[in-house]
Amino acid sequence: MRIVSFECEGKNRIGLKVGDEVIDVSIAAKELPQDLLGLLQSNLDVQKELNTLIEHCPQEAKRSSKDLRFTSLIQHPPKIICIGRNYAAHAVEGGVEPPTYPEIFLRCAESLIGHEEPIIRPRCSDKLDYEGEIAAIIGKKARHVKEQDGLDYIAGYALFNDATIRDYQRKSSQWTIGKNFDGTGAFGPEFVTADELPAGMDGVQLQTRLNGEVMQNASTSDFIFPMAKLIEILSECMTLLPGDVIITGTPAGVGYVRKPPVFMKPGDVVEVEAKGLGILRNTIEDE
Amino acid sequence: MRIVSFECEGKNRIGLKVGDEVIDVSIAAKELPQDLLGLLQSNLDVQKELNTLIEHCPQEAKRSSKDLRFTSLIQHPPKIICIGRNYAAHAVEGGVEPPTYPEIFLRCAESLIGHEEPIIRPRCSDKLDYEGEIAAIIGKKARHVKEQDGLDYIAGYALFNDATIRDYQRKSSQWTIGKNFDGTGAFGPEFVTADELPAGMDGVQLQTRLNGEVMQNASTSDFIFPMAKLIEILSECMTLLPGDVIITGTPAGVGYVRKPPVFMKPGDVVEVEAKGLGILRNTIEDE
Repeated sequence: MRIVSFECEGKNRIGLKVGDEVIDVSIAAKELPQDLLGLLQSNLDVQKELNTLIEHCPQEAKRSSKDLRFTSLIQHPPKIICIGRNYAAHAVEGGVEPPTYPEIFLRCAESLIGHEEPIIRPRCSDKLDYEGEIAAIIGKKARHVKEQDGLDYIAGYALFNDATIRDYQRKSSQWTIGKNFDGTGAFGPEFVTADELPAGMDGVQLQTRLNGEVMQNASTSDFIFPMAKLIEILSECMTLLPGDVIITGTPAGVGYVRKPPVFMKPGDVVEVEAKGLGILRNTIEDE
Repeated sequence: MRIVSFECEGKNRIGLKVGDEVIDVSIAAKELPQDLLGLLQSNLDVQKELNTLIEHCPQEAKRSSKDLRFTSLIQHPPKIICIGRNYAAHAVEGGVEPPTYPEIFLRCAESLIGHEEPIIRPRCSDKLDYEGEIAAIIGKKARHVKEQDGLDYIAGYALFNDATIRDYQRKSSQWTIGKNFDGTGAFGPEFVTADELPAGMDGVQLQTRLNGEVMQNASTSDFIFPMAKLIEILSECMTLLPGDVIITGTPAGVGYVRKPPVFMKPGDVVEVEAKGLGILRNTIEDE
């Protein structure tokens, strides 16, 4: 099952994606929660409800996905937990040994944007870098979960561009501010339920392209901390809630370590792609 | 004006504190927003509305503050932004030069608790440390604000205990996970509007006591980045929203640098106090 978030008449809506068509849930099923967070928080058998919807969908609820203005898949996730240096090769390019415990930081909801919304290069810096990542979205409350049960708590996956203001990331020992500029966290293009994807997204190729050129290209089999292990590690400390987003780290190939360094400029088009999750595409704009 | 948050019949309520009495807003003014975040987000002249309330308060809305079960002042602030090493002497005790840019990290809302709620020592660590702090609460949207205007955006202040799991804080270069354990962020006892306090909380003595013994005792005049400067620095990067909480750093005297180190154990009572903001008191419990 694939769900998109989009804006229509000033309101955020969700749609069920079936091929190139999207079924507008606000028309086809008014009784269901009208955002992805609400769906994940509900005790409904969402898959069953939405499958019924496909079978009995009124024609006026069908939209072409080309016409939609996408928004962040979830507007206000309870938590957006980011994992740093989770691909062995990216850890090496940053000049450090692979970590024995993940680097963890948080993103705020206000930094999120959707597929095809602009990533904003701020006034104060031209060091805007891409970081293509896979996001895991939590489906049920998790606390003290062991690795072998970790995947049971992941409802689905999506793509994320954890765009970073590199000089601000390095202004102090803590990376958080460089990861929380307005309009820098692209989250889309669609939420795909885990049953349609390889378990734990294992062995999936993740690619980031800048103006068509491949900049990052790695398999999630290079993960230092696989998805299920991340659930164990995080749920040891905190309660994970439905709608929490775990951004699982970026592969080697980021712009700032290139020689010469590559930063994103207005008009650039950045794409993040992984098999089964579609293509997350954003254009850069100046603030 | 002083506002408290408390639980009654399974619901979160707010009350206006007048002396030792609290006026239950859910009884005295049903038409007002029923939580502090809602009040801050509303365009109402809240002070005026609540002052009217004091004058025409029905007897049944009055409660003794002794009988209340307090909760986190705001349940789900849009952002909880924490500043590390903001007191010159605390930076020195940590063995580092005072920073030229603040150390910034985020706390998640799920880690918050209220005045008199237990701080939880987790199963996985006995390295639970206190950090008494002053929290500034944002009153209006702020972006690209200059220091000289910074204080205009702060609605009021409260106390915070940024309790930290020290070994988890140091498991990687990023402190975030050690600052986000369930039940470790104490936020209370009352929200006090800025007009009742010194401008920017300048020159206020902040004290943390563990079982009655003074552990931290410093003046905010030791701030490396004063309140107004923090608004400038943060709003350069991100939009601050009504209800955002900025936790402004802790003074020297934390437990882990003491010889021998001091960590909090079940049954310990920790208090944070600053003139005008009351006493934030919490007891330690094991998970």
